[in-house]
Amino acid sequence: MDVYEKSLKKHYEWAGKLEVKLRAKIETLDDLALCYTPGVSRACTEIAADKSKSFELTGRHNTVAVVTDGTAVLGLGDIGPEAAMPVMEGKCALFKAFAGIDATPVCLDTKDVDEIVKVVAAISKSYGGINLEDISAPRCFEIERRLKEICDIPVFHDDQHGTAIVAGAALLNALRVVGKDIRAVRIVINGAGSAGIAIAKFFLDLGAGDVVCVDKCGVLVDGEHYENPAHEEISKRTNKTKIRGTLADAIVGADVFLGVSAPKIVSKAMIKSMAADPIVFPLANPVPEITREEALEAGAAVVGTGASGKPNQINNVLMFPGIFRGALDCRARDITDNMKRAAAAALSALVSDEELHADYILPNPLDKRVVKAVSQAVTDAARQDGVNRI
Amino acid sequence: MDVYEKSLKKHYEWAGKLEVKLRAKIETLDDLALCYTPGVSRACTEIAADKSKSFELTGRHNTVAVVTDGTAVLGLGDIGPEAAMPVMEGKCALFKAFAGIDATPVCLDTKDVDEIVKVVAAISKSYGGINLEDISAPRCFEIERRLKEICDIPVFHDDQHGTAIVAGAALLNALRVVGKDIRAVRIVINGAGSAGIAIAKFFLDLGAGDVVCVDKCGVLVDGEHYENPAHEEISKRTNKTKIRGTLADAIVGADVFLGVSAPKIVSKAMIKSMAADPIVFPLANPVPEITREEALEAGAAVVGTGASGKPNQINNVLMFPGIFRGALDCRARDITDNMKRAAAAALSALVSDEELHADYILPNPLDKRVVKAVSQAVTDAARQDGVNRI
Repeated sequence: MDVYEKSLKKHYEWAGKLEVKLRAKIETLDDLALCYTPGVSRACTEIAADKSKSFELTGRHNTVAVVTDGTAVLGLGDIGPEAAMPVMEGKCALFKAFAGIDATPVCLDTKDVDEIVKVVAAISKSYGGINLEDISAPRCFEIERRLKEICDIPVFHDDQHGTAIVAGAALLNALRVVGKDIRAVRIVINGAGSAGIAIAKFFLDLGAGDVVCVDKCGVLVDGEHYENPAHEEISKRTNKTKIRGTLADAIVGADVFLGVSAPKIVSKAMIKSMAADPIVFPLANPVPEITREEALEAGAAVVGTGASGKPNQINNVLMFPGIFRGALDCRARDITDNMKRAAAAALSALVSDEELHADYILPNPLDKRVVKAVSQAVTDAARQDGVNRI
Repeated sequence: MDVYEKSLKKHYEWAGKLEVKLRAKIETLDDLALCYTPGVSRACTEIAADKSKSFELTGRHNTVAVVTDGTAVLGLGDIGPEAAMPVMEGKCALFKAFAGIDATPVCLDTKDVDEIVKVVAAISKSYGGINLEDISAPRCFEIERRLKEICDIPVFHDDQHGTAIVAGAALLNALRVVGKDIRAVRIVINGAGSAGIAIAKFFLDLGAGDVVCVDKCGVLVDGEHYENPAHEEISKRTNKTKIRGTLADAIVGADVFLGVSAPKIVSKAMIKSMAADPIVFPLANPVPEITREEALEAGAAVVGTGASGKPNQINNVLMFPGIFRGALDCRARDITDNMKRAAAAALSALVSDEELHADYILPNPLDKRVVKAVSQAVTDAARQDGVNRI
């Protein structure tokens, strides 16, 4: 039985990966009177008088909603709210297992951007943070931007920023391995969906001197008109030398290739056309743009993929538990760019100079130090930025 | 320390009455691959092909959302979503403790009826049922009616129907005690908010021959015009003899008094003006319309109140766990009037002729037989009505 059939069997056994556990015991009428009416009204009046008490008297301080509209679930596309639920439950399970966070899945039966914004804003007072998940581009950009403006808790689209921050940490350490400066390298990103655009922006934010984005339509270049406003925006900030053409054109002489696109679209010849000591991150999952083995055969100096159980797995689970743990720990109102940079730096710093190696640029996803280091860095950065409540 | 201060202290200790417990263990990379990517995609495709599988492969079969807009929380009124949370967490805790149901609190930051309907409809595919809670009248009537039309899972406003069903069971058994027929009695209900209106409708549905509703404006009577559409509607179905005036006028000669109104507004003289062997249910909480002791002194044959630890407590916890347990067990699409009547009958039947007594018309709220009997009756009735999925 392969991993898919084994997982399906397990899903039938679990019949739901999450359940509710009570912190308040309810065995007697006295317990009822404390946990519920009439006693509970006292906690209500306390919060009514000072809303910040909602972080002390309820679970809000440790609760995240994992919200999707089911439009871009894994590589499956628009499968709707019911079918998206197994992924959201899984995400919530990881929040608990990795960071002790009580997350709850919310799958929305609407694809309307205005309505999604209204719904998430309306439920946001119940939680300490909102993790947006598997919402298709370019809708996800507007949804997140508007929700960040409206909500007074962190709103974080993990497919964008979780991926970008882990990829950023991987890039920083891969550059340490090959001894190149982020300001001097050319980075080609193939796939300009939610992850690709967010990675491009985050790499620029980390100081990358030359990022080139490529989508199905070819290399994005300033001056062209794009239907997708996210393409329009990123084209103005990238591709310094105005490369035109396809991925094969863009990759010639590049120092870094990162793919969040489609299986098997990068050839060995394309890797061979890159600059010396190329860094190759083919992240398409489960089948990457080029396999790790082929990339190494073609001369790649460092390879990172999304594959589990191989070296340098670029896995979001290295980031979202720690990011939200840190944000919740200081009751952050937002997750800022500074907090994201701090998270990437903390993750990359977990690999010491002695440990650093072409096959070890990131900690193992199960490394217990990760959540601690990332969350501390995120909390510190939130306090620098003044977005903390405590 | 009284129950309120003790409860507040406990709320600080709990810092949230609920947490997430994992049914899926996540310790190894293999566990991750089954619970999350890549394996989880198989459960998604299974549901995408057949949406009913969402009740088998996710927690939906056992999950209820407890939804409020914070506008009518206990007796505290409109205290908003953050301050409503302790009650909603408490309700979820009772769902788990009494019926093993995994409930999640959702407190909405909007009071707009259209928006509430949209939000709840949008999140409804994540759950097996929706328990509406503490939403002010008359908005709650429209919200529930519209959601019942839209959603393919049960939508149940507990303040209305939970209260009505338990009161109905109490009425049936109190009538057994005094040997009166429900078709022949006159029942005065004081307080025509969400609970009062629902109780009046449910009593009519149980066969009550003459129900008279009284609100702050006086006795509701057909032919008068009322701003509140719920008052307009119920006035046409009640008050057979067209009594006019105040509560004091309506209660003269009545067989049953039920209050869901305000503290201390019923006098001993008013009880003395009732028919022989009056049944008195002063349910205002925590201070009733008249105390149990005063009502008995004035000649009440049977008294039921909302007070914990006294005989005949008319407590919603006798109903909502079993109603939802029964609805979830057959994956009901709706909760019908027939299911409500069946639930009331099942609850009242738990008191045998031998046990029945003026001081024992309802089982104790902690009685383990209650959820079992109510849920079985609800499932059976759902199958009669064809609103079951299994």
